[in-house]
Amino acid sequence: MDVGFIGLGRMGQAIAANVLRAGHRLSVWNRSPAAAEALVAGGAQLVGTPAQAARGEVLMSMLADDAAHRSVLIEGGVFAGASGGLVYVNLATVSVALARELAALAAAHGVTYLAAPVFGRPEAAAAAKLNIVVGGDGAALTRIESLLLTIGERIWPVGALPEHANVVKLAGNFMIASALETMGEAAALVRAHGIRSADFLDILTSTLFAGPVYQNYGRLIAAQRYQPAGFTVTLGLKDVRLALEAAESERVPMPVAGVLRDHFLEALAAGRGEQDWAALAEVAATHAALAARGR
Amino acid sequence: MDVGFIGLGRMGQAIAANVLRAGHRLSVWNRSPAAAEALVAGGAQLVGTPAQAARGEVLMSMLADDAAHRSVLIEGGVFAGASGGLVYVNLATVSVALARELAALAAAHGVTYLAAPVFGRPEAAAAAKLNIVVGGDGAALTRIESLLLTIGERIWPVGALPEHANVVKLAGNFMIASALETMGEAAALVRAHGIRSADFLDILTSTLFAGPVYQNYGRLIAAQRYQPAGFTVTLGLKDVRLALEAAESERVPMPVAGVLRDHFLEALAAGRGEQDWAALAEVAATHAALAARGR
Amino acid sequence: MDVGFIGLGRMGQAIAANVLRAGHRLSVWNRSPAAAEALVAGGAQLVGTPAQAARGEVLMSMLADDAAHRSVLIEGGVFAGASGGLVYVNLATVSVALARELAALAAAHGVTYLAAPVFGRPEAAAAAKLNIVVGGDGAALTRIESLLLTIGERIWPVGALPEHANVVKLAGNFMIASALETMGEAAALVRAHGIRSADFLDILTSTLFAGPVYQNYGRLIAAQRYQPAGFTVTLGLKDVRLALEAAESERVPMPVAGVLRDHFLEALAAGRGEQDWAALAEVAATHAALAARGR
Amino acid sequence: MDVGFIGLGRMGQAIAANVLRAGHRLSVWNRSPAAAEALVAGGAQLVGTPAQAARGEVLMSMLADDAAHRSVLIEGGVFAGASGGLVYVNLATVSVALARELAALAAAHGVTYLAAPVFGRPEAAAAAKLNIVVGGDGAALTRIESLLLTIGERIWPVGALPEHANVVKLAGNFMIASALETMGEAAALVRAHGIRSADFLDILTSTLFAGPVYQNYGRLIAAQRYQPAGFTVTLGLKDVRLALEAAESERVPMPVAGVLRDHFLEALAAGRGEQDWAALAEVAATHAALAARGR
Repeated sequence: MDVGFIGLGRMGQAIAANVLRAGHRLSVWNRSPAAAEALVAGGAQLVGTPAQAARGEVLMSMLADDAAHRSVLIEGGVFAGASGGLVYVNLATVSVALARELAALAAAHGVTYLAAPVFGRPEAAAAAKLNIVVGGDGAALTRIESLLLTIGERIWPVGALPEHANVVKLAGNFMIASALETMGEAAALVRAHGIRSADFLDILTSTLFAGPVYQNYGRLIAAQRYQPAGFTVTLGLKDVRLALEAAESERVPMPVAGVLRDHFLEALAAGRGEQDWAALAEVAATHAALAARGR
Repeated sequence: MDVGFIGLGRMGQAIAANVLRAGHRLSVWNRSPAAAEALVAGGAQLVGTPAQAARGEVLMSMLADDAAHRSVLIEGGVFAGASGGLVYVNLATVSVALARELAALAAAHGVTYLAAPVFGRPEAAAAAKLNIVVGGDGAALTRIESLLLTIGERIWPVGALPEHANVVKLAGNFMIASALETMGEAAALVRAHGIRSADFLDILTSTLFAGPVYQNYGRLIAAQRYQPAGFTVTLGLKDVRLALEAAESERVPMPVAGVLRDHFLEALAAGRGEQDWAALAEVAATHAALAARGR
Repeated sequence: MDVGFIGLGRMGQAIAANVLRAGHRLSVWNRSPAAAEALVAGGAQLVGTPAQAARGEVLMSMLADDAAHRSVLIEGGVFAGASGGLVYVNLATVSVALARELAALAAAHGVTYLAAPVFGRPEAAAAAKLNIVVGGDGAALTRIESLLLTIGERIWPVGALPEHANVVKLAGNFMIASALETMGEAAALVRAHGIRSADFLDILTSTLFAGPVYQNYGRLIAAQRYQPAGFTVTLGLKDVRLALEAAESERVPMPVAGVLRDHFLEALAAGRGEQDWAALAEVAATHAALAARGR
Repeated sequence: MDVGFIGLGRMGQAIAANVLRAGHRLSVWNRSPAAAEALVAGGAQLVGTPAQAARGEVLMSMLADDAAHRSVLIEGGVFAGASGGLVYVNLATVSVALARELAALAAAHGVTYLAAPVFGRPEAAAAAKLNIVVGGDGAALTRIESLLLTIGERIWPVGALPEHANVVKLAGNFMIASALETMGEAAALVRAHGIRSADFLDILTSTLFAGPVYQNYGRLIAAQRYQPAGFTVTLGLKDVRLALEAAESERVPMPVAGVLRDHFLEALAAGRGEQDWAALAEVAATHAALAARGR
């Protein structure tokens, strides 16, 4: 297929490389072109504007936040200049409100909008092991299914409304953040009693809490190792904020999400913004003054 | 071995049956003797006082709460009349303070105290699939290890201090309750947006949150099926309270545990005390008035 | 003075009437002109566009929320067409971000922006008893001080940055909402024990908590009388959200504000959006199922 | 009257001195007799056991916590040896459960139990300006009313159940602690924006939040002056715990009390246990890292 790709951060590069590797023609754009070098060396074409990436059959993008989508897609006029019948696949975690707005704008220009946020850290992206939640037109999804399976291991369709995929993604990220906070509080409790958090987390994540989130993040928390970051505290705060906004728009109180918001803010105020979001666990440890007690 | 067993609730009966089935001599006591019928039919001996169950090599008990331990063990004079060299294995979830007190009392009467709280619901107990966290004297643990493996699939030793096993158990139950609350809030969010919670939870528990707690309780929450209860809301509140006490004694703030406490109280006030503690998820749904909105 | 006034809701009408009564020439504009009738009967001039209200020496406005300010002031081109040297006095509670943006826009058109949010309910506005927090240019404030004293009993200058007045106002409204929640929780506690909340609140608000907020709202909460609304639940949620945004922009965790947000959302979901924000107290009573228990 | 007084901490000494000054015969007991010196110099009689203080018409006590009441009153056999018709006035803040237990024990020995917890710091006690909440037998209260008015400025009767006075006191202390937390969060917000907290708190406590709690504690918080302590962080935590227990026994969720508990624990973990409980405000400032930012 003729595929455009916008947004070559760590996730975007890994995903685009898999598209290229699968034999598709790939046009790429990134605000800073240097990020495209490896892809161009591999056969991708670097285009000069985001709109030029929208001239094929499919456009994918992985942009950082709502503001980046507004600036690149809307102000960049990407939909206005798109080829007829373009399917646009938005892989990023955006707000529910923006998903609705972009889908409407796409439709107005004859572009089919698929919201396709992904679960998985950069390693999973590189290994084409992402889980892709897809909302939007079923026929369009069918058309690009094999393309999506070059970047992920499974597709989870959630129906015709694109923003439903974003709600699922935000609710899922809330669950991950809640697991981080929970392990942080539990680890603080056991450490304060003189038990090693590694021993505690090993028991729980080998049994009741087997599963990737608890096992992978449990290791980071037990080792208090928050660098390099797979996903940062700053991004974690952004996603919790988006979950809270999605909740507020439908009047859903989420007290645990409120705790997460406060603790991400505190981690940020403590200078941990660029650490892995597993560093959320340090907030509970700090509140209990564990370091000062030698625990 | 010559084993006594005190406390034949649902968990206790299942565990004692496995001890018996493994060929050990079993003396049982329960406040209401009727609960012992099946065991007696299987060859166990019913004794008339708790103290009489302490005349063998090992005494196990599975009592409901701190008050029951005080009344049966302390007021019942169980340690005072125990056989020399008795190993007492306390399988229940008790407070850290009571664990310390019982261990000291046992020691004063020459009884070795092993705290051995278990993870697992009644089905797991029946299938001898419990995970047993053990704190206390290592030599005593070695002596009864094969006995413990007749009731559980794995032993997790946490060192010489009995109460450490209780801290681990309480921290673990806190993690389970937090998972229930988290799924409840996430499910309320997606339902309010018109997404089926079963669809959402299926995605998450098939991927990032694979593992028994999320999968088993996710099913109950998606189906809103809280009866019969494997573990009740009332017991959930008790364990969160014990976790908060253990945290307070070491000055560890646990804000998510505070949310859990409030929501268990609310579930109780709403008449859900005897439902499965997965009903915690209904609190979030109620706050968002989902039923009134047909969501 | 020659004064324009935009936004004739309940607060705006009461304030504008005091300006008129003090002998100033008054031009008024409101989206729905009917709201201007009493003022016109009293001598005010109704103008056809918001921009026309900006042709005098001073422009005041009292608009509902950030969106109304954008639509009326920015899209309405009010600053662009303002008379030279206009002092614009924004009496409303707006976001810190909008205050900065409006102040910059005003300055670009030679208009001096004073943020002047007020404390006081409609009765206080009618009685010219408002407390006015003012941020912005000191000389401009001096020039209009006597005008402000026709609508309020005291001016509280907070320095040269307009948005500081908004931060103070939002922090103040957070304190009021927190007092409502606190009285709600305390009242639920005493009622559950069989004590009348009126008796309890009478003791506290006659002694330690003498002062208008506790006394006035304490009466509403004791009587469970939430209509007519002086300030609605919907507006309360808006202001808590603005406080949380102002906190997030400077990385300040505010856990009590998080509780308030959740409870305002729950009150809204329960259909209380147009009740007085003192109805926040009902959330705590509902969680304890007091009605069902006849307490 | 013939009055006994047990418990001569800072509050107890000030109160007993007022009783003595009013011309009553006073027998005093304290664990450490040195605390009685000034009173003895003023004419009080020092007795050797708590029970000896119960030989007059009225016994008052001001003991530190539930444990002290158990040890001094119950183990000390105070009620057993009391004079016939003794009225016992418990001025301390104790748990609802202990109030019930003591009242029953007193009744069994023919002693009338009045729960009479007081609002007021040591300065108010010295100035006989306490507010006294009284639960218990109305006739007994009538008999000692004039005695109580020698130590306080007003009596607030709450009916025949002693523990109702304790519930009111605990709910009141919860309200004070909530005001401390609220001012702490609001002050952190304004400081983070570059506004002096003294300026902010001056506006609010001069207007909407006039009244002793906000004005007195507002000054301490604005000055960040937490020594000497009128009432310590340690005692604040104790009272919040008692409020949470009283709430739990009647199934009342109190999320703000949960925040208070966590923040008192954090203040304690940070070594602030002996500071004035207004230091609760420092927790919010610490979370926002204000000191590190020079705010």
